[in-house]
Amino acid sequence: MPDRRFAVDDVPDPDVRLEDADAHVHYDWDSARDPVATVDPGTVVRFDCRDAYDGQARPPATVEDVLAVDAPGHPLVGPVAVEGVEPGDTLRVDLLAFEHEGWGLTAVPQPEREAGLLPEEFPDAHVREWDLDATRDGVPVAEFAADDAPEVAVPIAPFPGNLGVAPAADGAHSTTPPRRVGGNLDVKHLTAGATLFLPVEVAGGLFSLGDCHAAQGDGEVCLTGIEAPMSATARLDVVRDRPIDRPELDTTGPFTPTGRDEPMHATCGVDSDLMEAAREAIRGTIAHLHERRGFSRADAYVLASVAVDLKVSQVVDAPNWTVTAYLPESVLVGDD
Amino acid sequence: MPDRRFAVDDVPDPDVRLEDADAHVHYDWDSARDPVATVDPGTVVRFDCRDAYDGQARPPATVEDVLAVDAPGHPLVGPVAVEGVEPGDTLRVDLLAFEHEGWGLTAVPQPEREAGLLPEEFPDAHVREWDLDATRDGVPVAEFAADDAPEVAVPIAPFPGNLGVAPAADGAHSTTPPRRVGGNLDVKHLTAGATLFLPVEVAGGLFSLGDCHAAQGDGEVCLTGIEAPMSATARLDVVRDRPIDRPELDTTGPFTPTGRDEPMHATCGVDSDLMEAAREAIRGTIAHLHERRGFSRADAYVLASVAVDLKVSQVVDAPNWTVTAYLPESVLVGDD
Repeated sequence: MPDRRFAVDDVPDPDVRLEDADAHVHYDWDSARDPVATVDPGTVVRFDCRDAYDGQARPPATVEDVLAVDAPGHPLVGPVAVEGVEPGDTLRVDLLAFEHEGWGLTAVPQPEREAGLLPEEFPDAHVREWDLDATRDGVPVAEFAADDAPEVAVPIAPFPGNLGVAPAADGAHSTTPPRRVGGNLDVKHLTAGATLFLPVEVAGGLFSLGDCHAAQGDGEVCLTGIEAPMSATARLDVVRDRPIDRPELDTTGPFTPTGRDEPMHATCGVDSDLMEAAREAIRGTIAHLHERRGFSRADAYVLASVAVDLKVSQVVDAPNWTVTAYLPESVLVGDD
Repeated sequence: MPDRRFAVDDVPDPDVRLEDADAHVHYDWDSARDPVATVDPGTVVRFDCRDAYDGQARPPATVEDVLAVDAPGHPLVGPVAVEGVEPGDTLRVDLLAFEHEGWGLTAVPQPEREAGLLPEEFPDAHVREWDLDATRDGVPVAEFAADDAPEVAVPIAPFPGNLGVAPAADGAHSTTPPRRVGGNLDVKHLTAGATLFLPVEVAGGLFSLGDCHAAQGDGEVCLTGIEAPMSATARLDVVRDRPIDRPELDTTGPFTPTGRDEPMHATCGVDSDLMEAAREAIRGTIAHLHERRGFSRADAYVLASVAVDLKVSQVVDAPNWTVTAYLPESVLVGDD
């Protein structure tokens, strides 16, 4: 079995471990919530996170199981207050290690409840389980667990989909939309080794983390990445001479599945609305996978969500913009 | 002097060469235009292209020179008709070689005339000349030509910003917006070795190409890449069993400046409008380059346009989307 741990070198033992317990989990952002821990700057914290389905849909999970999940939001672990941090400071989060549990789920939602990028074109929910203990050429990859699924190998690159500090505005705020203080950013390059900087709005920062993904494409188009229970270890620190207006990060990717230039098939969405250009690009990906590579449309949508990257090619050639969707050939191992 | 030619191995001699002559250049798309050449499928054609400023602004070019350019559109070389190609066919364009002339220009436009992504924030035009004959660690790079400019090294990765076939709709159509038949796609991964597929709408296809860039970021945010006069050599062919609805391409990138994972600084734009999220991300890039790396805001905008990549991190966490702008540290050689 390959290593389930993805980490930088020499990760220190966590000073604080927040185990998966109801007392450590919250489902909205609220600056009035008491911290579950208060730590000094520089403290290494381990967050033991449930998957986005709140641990309620476990393999072998059916569509019905996922639709039956009853959670009031993303289960986030925290909040952790950092001693001495004040509004206007910048919270520094060094992401050090992730460790999954061998499985993940990707689901296309039922549009009446939640929507991916193409709800009208995908009226039916669909669920795929992933085996995260596979390897290909020595590289840990996610494979579809079901025998009837197409053969793919998506390199595992774990990151937290949802991490941030509490917004200052009073009351409870949904965990679904990201904000300037972070939250559900779904930035796939927040892998082990990356550093995230967040603008602090309340005393202590009140940092929380959850919704880990074993892999995701830029876009997360069907609504979900490879949703997986996972521990995340991070160092929390403060920067006082660098005020910022939005999240920033330092990262080394990976920017392609293999970490180096590799063959990709891409489809261009051209439209006067940038979101519609993104839809057009992904329609092209799905048509390509369905018509030429043997995928069902639902499985094509799932693969696009976890392994296809949306890039904004241009936003200046008025009145039409270009968004291009890049599908790495290396994940389509069924063609071998 | 480094090689000015960027090519796949074993490029055949062109069967047809369209030299830079007024008779080979047009400034709009029009299906009624007579082809300058009619070729058999599989023919290799060399297009000798002026830069986007129609050869009217040459180094040392001032802002006044660029503002004085009087061209009715992008100068495109063609159209080339491919024998036997019919509406519904797919034109296949294998991009084989590019050769620049040692210089390029990037300009921030005057917003009253043309707009980049942030016209209100950049009311003044700005022009930078690039030296394309530089190298760094043996890699051909673009450097700012002026002594007062910051020290950067942007790896050269030439591609045509504007290439496509004629739309069927009657009349003359602007070269500025791309369409489903291609045109001003500004897809930076259409480098030598890439293959573009285009849906054909008129007999012969009527393919044209121009507006070559020595480098560009995904987004081309200030309106221009490194605009450079350049020859492009491509094989034109037809695919009859593969109808497509939009441009598609096969490419190996480069997906990062070095072609492998490398450190990047990224800024996240979060907004309920995808275009505004892109603006927010680039505002972050410009603030970072200006406040922490010593760039003027105008030079930061120029560098963002030629070397920063906009990625759509997620388009499903309603009501807010994430667009992230990635700045490769390797281009900022002035910090050495």
